[in-house]
Amino acid sequence: MRYAQRMDQVRSSFIRDNLKVIQIPGMISFAGGMPAAELFPVEAYREACNCVLSEHGRQALQYDTTDGYRPLRQIIASDLMRQAGVTGMSEDNIVITTGSQQGIDCAGKLFLDPTDVVLCEKPSFIGAINAFRVYQPQIVQVEMDDKGLRIDALEEALKTYPRAKFIYTIPDFQNPSGLSLDLERRKQLVGLAEQYDVPIIEDSPYHRLRYTGPDLPAVKSFDTRGLVIYLGTFSKIFSPGIRLAWMCASEEVISKVILLKQSADLHTSSIAQRELVKLMEIYSFEEHVQCIKQVYSARKDLMLDRIAAEFPDCARVSPVDGGLFLWVTLPAHVDTMDLYFQAIDEKVTFVPGSPFFVDDSEKNHMRLNFSSMQEEKIVEGMKRLGKLVRSVC
Amino acid sequence: MRYAQRMDQVRSSFIRDNLKVIQIPGMISFAGGMPAAELFPVEAYREACNCVLSEHGRQALQYDTTDGYRPLRQIIASDLMRQAGVTGMSEDNIVITTGSQQGIDCAGKLFLDPTDVVLCEKPSFIGAINAFRVYQPQIVQVEMDDKGLRIDALEEALKTYPRAKFIYTIPDFQNPSGLSLDLERRKQLVGLAEQYDVPIIEDSPYHRLRYTGPDLPAVKSFDTRGLVIYLGTFSKIFSPGIRLAWMCASEEVISKVILLKQSADLHTSSIAQRELVKLMEIYSFEEHVQCIKQVYSARKDLMLDRIAAEFPDCARVSPVDGGLFLWVTLPAHVDTMDLYFQAIDEKVTFVPGSPFFVDDSEKNHMRLNFSSMQEEKIVEGMKRLGKLVRSVC
Repeated sequence: MRYAQRMDQVRSSFIRDNLKVIQIPGMISFAGGMPAAELFPVEAYREACNCVLSEHGRQALQYDTTDGYRPLRQIIASDLMRQAGVTGMSEDNIVITTGSQQGIDCAGKLFLDPTDVVLCEKPSFIGAINAFRVYQPQIVQVEMDDKGLRIDALEEALKTYPRAKFIYTIPDFQNPSGLSLDLERRKQLVGLAEQYDVPIIEDSPYHRLRYTGPDLPAVKSFDTRGLVIYLGTFSKIFSPGIRLAWMCASEEVISKVILLKQSADLHTSSIAQRELVKLMEIYSFEEHVQCIKQVYSARKDLMLDRIAAEFPDCARVSPVDGGLFLWVTLPAHVDTMDLYFQAIDEKVTFVPGSPFFVDDSEKNHMRLNFSSMQEEKIVEGMKRLGKLVRSVC
Repeated sequence: MRYAQRMDQVRSSFIRDNLKVIQIPGMISFAGGMPAAELFPVEAYREACNCVLSEHGRQALQYDTTDGYRPLRQIIASDLMRQAGVTGMSEDNIVITTGSQQGIDCAGKLFLDPTDVVLCEKPSFIGAINAFRVYQPQIVQVEMDDKGLRIDALEEALKTYPRAKFIYTIPDFQNPSGLSLDLERRKQLVGLAEQYDVPIIEDSPYHRLRYTGPDLPAVKSFDTRGLVIYLGTFSKIFSPGIRLAWMCASEEVISKVILLKQSADLHTSSIAQRELVKLMEIYSFEEHVQCIKQVYSARKDLMLDRIAAEFPDCARVSPVDGGLFLWVTLPAHVDTMDLYFQAIDEKVTFVPGSPFFVDDSEKNHMRLNFSSMQEEKIVEGMKRLGKLVRSVC
């Protein structure tokens, strides 16, 4: 078979492939970015499904428009975007996507020709890097520090690549580093985007999951020219299995993304969209978010505590105010990919850092998820990992 | 904004855009390829949803693997592919897709570089043509006759374009022409594909919806070298709103499509896949298919009868043994796009033929869906359309 040239660049996601490791009996997993399954509001969702199928089952099972179910788009525009500090949006600024992954894919499809430049954080989300690779760009990673993406480094990159097609950023509790972009830099980021006329893809799956520090408005809240394309999702605040997310952008961008989505999957599940709207009617999403925040925050603190107790002093944890991940940096000589394979034998798993770097350049990081394992597993898992880390430091 | 070059070629789907016309109150629609909503097994599906959420709600709402829910893939490999005459497939030959549209998109992504050649029928499905356009190929349409794709014309095309990347075909009750590829040609098609080493994308949404004539095995049933990529779907035999379909192909192709699907939407809804498996346990799919076949067959006959009564003699209907569509050819001077706009005023709608031709070359066809409107609407709608057609013939 003669495949397209892009297939030479497409790679498997380390995180996805690792799902099979997670399923090994007895495995303690800090690998996937999974929500805690025991907190899913299963009963409320069952009630929502029953209501939708009883009240308008025939519409729910039929084809639907590509932009998505209007009441859901209205709630997103009026409530969820406002919670992120973004006002003035209507349902016409929203398209429902089959997970944020589809929004990322559509952004790549919309902007990228082969050899075009994408700017993103160093490190950045594997799933985004892989999605962009399908469109054969040059991906340039820009350094971060404890306040998130370094604006001076970004400006340097924009000077080097003034025709960059977009900047991809995860400003809140970034995947994988856990770092957040501070308020001042959010404004500066939009300023630079305007100056260089480069759109920003703001990927914001974790925004609501803040455990410490004051809420920060979305980068999009500073956008006056429609340059910011915001991606939000229900995966982390409700359920990833239903595959419901959204893009919020200018009407021009939304209309083009709808064209691409027509070709990609026609529309996102009609029944899932209706069920979600019903769920939000009969169940307090706000209370649910507070509940998962409480649990995740406690797990994060426990994990930090156990790392301090079990890991050697040379292990550095990046400052994290929310989200799902801790990012641990070990001495430069340590290759965490080796550690990963040793860990599987000890029935504990995590994501090594190198796949988050386009050039695999930094090998001494570990991404640890703290949301999906219950407390005793965190204690035992950190004990196992700490022993391994001590053996190589 | 500086978009990718592909955006110059991407077009809106006439069928999708027309969904807004369909929603005009009082509109009689023969436009969309919609199943009859009144036949959806809503109560059985509600029971399936309740079972899944009661029995394994937490897994159903969590992330899942990209290839899809194993029990669903097993049923498809062992039962549904066998019904299509395809044996020797296992779950490793199956990937669950978010509608067949995603399978079509993945095929384009997998094979096409800009300027590559795709061969397909003339006319062909708008949604496939538009999905391929995203990857900037040259789309070459090959003539059909009453026995489907003309093999002599295909061989000519392969001689002209020996490096064609794939042949896209809908062998059963084709969309839009309603025509089927006869048995002998199915074998010849695979023979040519082997000779020229060109894969075939066999898009088969209507296979089970045969009302007259003997069942024909899928093109893939003659495939000995893994050259045929088969697309099946639950949209027409159960519900399109749940967005569940599959691709059946060689393990090599499946593994590559899984990579592309990781980037496109991670995975298809975990809960929807489990609900469908449960539905097939508690409800006879076979009886359901027999039920919808009975209704659609009667509607097809009624529509043919009313066309004979209401349309002028110059209107020719292509021979149709199943599926969802009649294809009506009017005299060459008639532009059915004009007729389409006049029809909206008369509160009746259909799909004009020209969007099914890559070069918009033939303007005198109409695609009429007979599955979604109830009998009295078919009678009234054909009266309205017949009057319009008579006025231009």
